[in-house]
Amino acid sequence: MQPSIILVNPQMGANIGAAARVMFNFGLTDLRLVSPRDGWPNIEAERNSAGALEAMPDVQVFNTLADAVADLHFVLATTARPRDMVKSVYTPQMASSEMRKRAQEGMGCGFVFGAERTGLVNDDIAICHGIINIPTNPDFSSLNLGQAVLLCAWEWFRTQDETHGLALPVGDSFPAKLEDLMGFLDRLENALDDGGFFKAPDLKPTMLRNIRAMFTRSGLTDQELRTLHGILSALADTKKRP
Amino acid sequence: MQPSIILVNPQMGANIGAAARVMFNFGLTDLRLVSPRDGWPNIEAERNSAGALEAMPDVQVFNTLADAVADLHFVLATTARPRDMVKSVYTPQMASSEMRKRAQEGMGCGFVFGAERTGLVNDDIAICHGIINIPTNPDFSSLNLGQAVLLCAWEWFRTQDETHGLALPVGDSFPAKLEDLMGFLDRLENALDDGGFFKAPDLKPTMLRNIRAMFTRSGLTDQELRTLHGILSALADTKKRP
Repeated sequence: MQPSIILVNPQMGANIGAAARVMFNFGLTDLRLVSPRDGWPNIEAERNSAGALEAMPDVQVFNTLADAVADLHFVLATTARPRDMVKSVYTPQMASSEMRKRAQEGMGCGFVFGAERTGLVNDDIAICHGIINIPTNPDFSSLNLGQAVLLCAWEWFRTQDETHGLALPVGDSFPAKLEDLMGFLDRLENALDDGGFFKAPDLKPTMLRNIRAMFTRSGLTDQELRTLHGILSALADTKKRP
Repeated sequence: MQPSIILVNPQMGANIGAAARVMFNFGLTDLRLVSPRDGWPNIEAERNSAGALEAMPDVQVFNTLADAVADLHFVLATTARPRDMVKSVYTPQMASSEMRKRAQEGMGCGFVFGAERTGLVNDDIAICHGIINIPTNPDFSSLNLGQAVLLCAWEWFRTQDETHGLALPVGDSFPAKLEDLMGFLDRLENALDDGGFFKAPDLKPTMLRNIRAMFTRSGLTDQELRTLHGILSALADTKKRP
């Protein structure tokens, strides 16, 4: 069950569209508006959603925040400033993690955002379960509405798979077998011997080890190994021509 | 040491401004532009930065990506599409975590972003150490430039509280600067030209790109670069002896 995004008294249609766009980027589709200044639907919102509003289910419009969150179980209010109110304060990642737990038990959750300039009034914050504060550069904290929605949607999205692993896409090629890599390194060693690379014989074992480490580390593919053989031939074999 | 944000061929001043704004929201101040379409400075960028461009150090402008990243040690390219290139793929959080480790050892890092519609060309990606892919809703993945920069800057900001166990062990040596790596690759290219490596001239750009990708990926140290220069001398320069 995905969390809802609730925008309270949004002023600019463009910002509603931007919010819809970033929601949908991260798979959220339940957008609710509380008394949007310019009514609904809004052509500027459509224009700025990059097609998200068309693709998402219909936006729901309410008169009050209480109406908008009536069917939800856990809602958090985003605020830029601390308020004089006893509420748990979450980062976006903590908030998403808490919502994910509840969603897995079938509870409806929501992120609540205030009007662009003024934010949420205390009466609205009072009916939320907690507060989300987005940490920023203390000297420059002016996130706009779309950016704040983006970070919350992103953090929600992140919680669904914490295991995004490091991938090394190798296309049609395949990582080289170690024996083939060693074959290249042996050939390189011979060529370096011929070229007089190892000037101090007692340093040769260390130098060879460092060269092997350097070429092994990058996870060369079969194709790349063929390229390296070609490079070696182009550089070294010309010497042997009479 | 904070990572740099490098925008390659940005088209719209408004997007440069948006990028500056979200960078500064999360404490990043080193913005570099490669051949911005409308030149620099740009009044639309100023207007859309919400004051960030005024507060940040001067933006630096370069002709090529290689110039823009010459003094950095670890740069990652953001791409929306998978490329047929052997590069490690990172999420923004993994990328930030890797950069944080390196930054703590004094290395310069950078996030590289392409032009709004077209993204980065393969030749630019080839000189980056890896790729960042931002996972999104597969049915709606249209992140704009400012949003992509925001997520990278946010993830960087998030890593500052994490504790890190493993550093990147490089011994007494230090990762090579990009300009030194490029210097080696240029020398290698010349030697390969001399050795008749590029038999089909029309394939040369692709082959060169693959070679660059292969040597950039492994994060070579200064010491290793000296070793590679020595190898190249031992293999190739003997040819020039009378």
